[in-house]
Amino acid sequence: MNQAKPRIAITMGDPAGVGPEVSLRALANPGLHEIADLRIFGDPAVLDAAADATGIPRTDRIVDCKAISLDQFEPGTVNAATGKAGFTYVDNAITAAKSGGIDGIVTAPLNKEALHAAGFPYPGHTEIFAEKLASDRFCMMQYSEILSCTFVTVHVGYAEVPKLITTERILETIELTREAFLKIRGSDPKIVVLGLNPHAGEHGLFGDREEERFIEPAVAEALARGWNIEGPIPPDTAFLKKRLAETDCFVCMYHDQGHIPVKALAFDKSVNTTLGLRIPRTSVDHGTALDIAWQGIADPSSMFEAVKLNVKLLGTAPLGQDI
Amino acid sequence: MNQAKPRIAITMGDPAGVGPEVSLRALANPGLHEIADLRIFGDPAVLDAAADATGIPRTDRIVDCKAISLDQFEPGTVNAATGKAGFTYVDNAITAAKSGGIDGIVTAPLNKEALHAAGFPYPGHTEIFAEKLASDRFCMMQYSEILSCTFVTVHVGYAEVPKLITTERILETIELTREAFLKIRGSDPKIVVLGLNPHAGEHGLFGDREEERFIEPAVAEALARGWNIEGPIPPDTAFLKKRLAETDCFVCMYHDQGHIPVKALAFDKSVNTTLGLRIPRTSVDHGTALDIAWQGIADPSSMFEAVKLNVKLLGTAPLGQDI
Repeated sequence: MNQAKPRIAITMGDPAGVGPEVSLRALANPGLHEIADLRIFGDPAVLDAAADATGIPRTDRIVDCKAISLDQFEPGTVNAATGKAGFTYVDNAITAAKSGGIDGIVTAPLNKEALHAAGFPYPGHTEIFAEKLASDRFCMMQYSEILSCTFVTVHVGYAEVPKLITTERILETIELTREAFLKIRGSDPKIVVLGLNPHAGEHGLFGDREEERFIEPAVAEALARGWNIEGPIPPDTAFLKKRLAETDCFVCMYHDQGHIPVKALAFDKSVNTTLGLRIPRTSVDHGTALDIAWQGIADPSSMFEAVKLNVKLLGTAPLGQDI
Repeated sequence: MNQAKPRIAITMGDPAGVGPEVSLRALANPGLHEIADLRIFGDPAVLDAAADATGIPRTDRIVDCKAISLDQFEPGTVNAATGKAGFTYVDNAITAAKSGGIDGIVTAPLNKEALHAAGFPYPGHTEIFAEKLASDRFCMMQYSEILSCTFVTVHVGYAEVPKLITTERILETIELTREAFLKIRGSDPKIVVLGLNPHAGEHGLFGDREEERFIEPAVAEALARGWNIEGPIPPDTAFLKKRLAETDCFVCMYHDQGHIPVKALAFDKSVNTTLGLRIPRTSVDHGTALDIAWQGIADPSSMFEAVKLNVKLLGTAPLGQDI
């Protein structure tokens, strides 16, 4: 029987950034059309202008969101209007997903300051999707072939992290990680959980025994379920070559614990995603890059990988009809 | 005039770990003898037994500290006696430095739990040296050819970091970094200071504006002095290839912010050092590695680099006679 290709929406991102061009690059990539039925949620006039400015082919596979006109912004400069438009593309794609019109969403970058100027106080895509797709459990993941990390906490201040580290939340993140990698790998994944403190606290020498109080009980419960898991381990020796090769995913306690090694070791090759949503949502692992926007020089690798990961997370059965 | 080679002490580290063998490897390396007058502060019977067990040549360049005998421990197993011995080698070397008998100290790894079991409640070498060599300003540095980091805070729990981040302490760390790299490079270094929060706070979106309140004033003062410095920058994009090539040293706010990328990108090539002491102190960037101790397979690269950096930090004039 002929399985239909999954219907994937690419949201165009902030119009003034590199979102329009990396979205167009995806549409111009024949390999991606083989695995997915792609369309951009954006503004046709903006996409045509970006195509002409950058030399990327135009596309007619656009869902017109009527969010902004060309005279409302300058490429490379964000404002409340571009923030509102970037949000509108995401919002429209989520609405389409809820009605069963698409199976997965790939997001080009928003600019958080523009988003906030427009009156949408979200820290990022992760939280928009969590709210709009009504997940009661979700987490961010950064995925690449070299290393992948999931996050117990993410867009919060450094000082707020310790009070958000609970056994329940850590176990939830472990569960979400395992579910995702069962789909991605098709087999039992090896998960490694990091400590919070230097040297994972070194048995109470540093910190408030967050490892013993919160992390160890979560790992113990996962082990009791028969899962392939280890931790908490010292964060600074987690990302050595030998361990990277043996590990499918690292569960990190805070944003920079995982983002620093992902960017250092897999920059431009990693994909950002939200696990636990009712449909897969993946995103490029870079920002709006205003300094190089609309010049045709933005690297689309992360966008290509984001489309591929979205299809992997869908597994063999597109989920659109279940929503 | 014939400049005498600097007199460098290697402290043997915890007897049960890999310290004895990497110390012996340094003594067996002809290249190191060309740049330094080396001796091990240790126990001759332990070093001879380690040499025989590992196939590394014995040496007679040993300062006998009479700290432990072979029947007091098993290789690969630490206890209070090995902790006390490891401390004694360091303590004797510091005494020798104070009396002008040596010019620099290179430390093989201690085991912190053994050290604590022996009644020495130091978090690590850094704090022992700071206390014994009476520094009023000091900081840890991890140095390698690929990247180097200095630390505003180091061996403290995650949650304690924000209250230790002051403008004075950040500026002190910047000053120590600049002084060290003027010696190492012989020219004006480029220093980059990291933020504390994800995305360096993103103008107050995350965190308590630690960047604006403490980090920016320190960088502004350094700039006012005409120094080549930048920051605070987002921590997760600090360690991209292009920036590594342009930067001599990153000033990090906490242990794992710098230790994660150093170990991920320069494992076995980096050296740990304490800046601001009255004599240079450098150390291997690995622990006692009890699982492979006394087997002759420990990689001595970091020990070799630690000796070389010690000589560089001495500059052209050995400082022993000034103490």
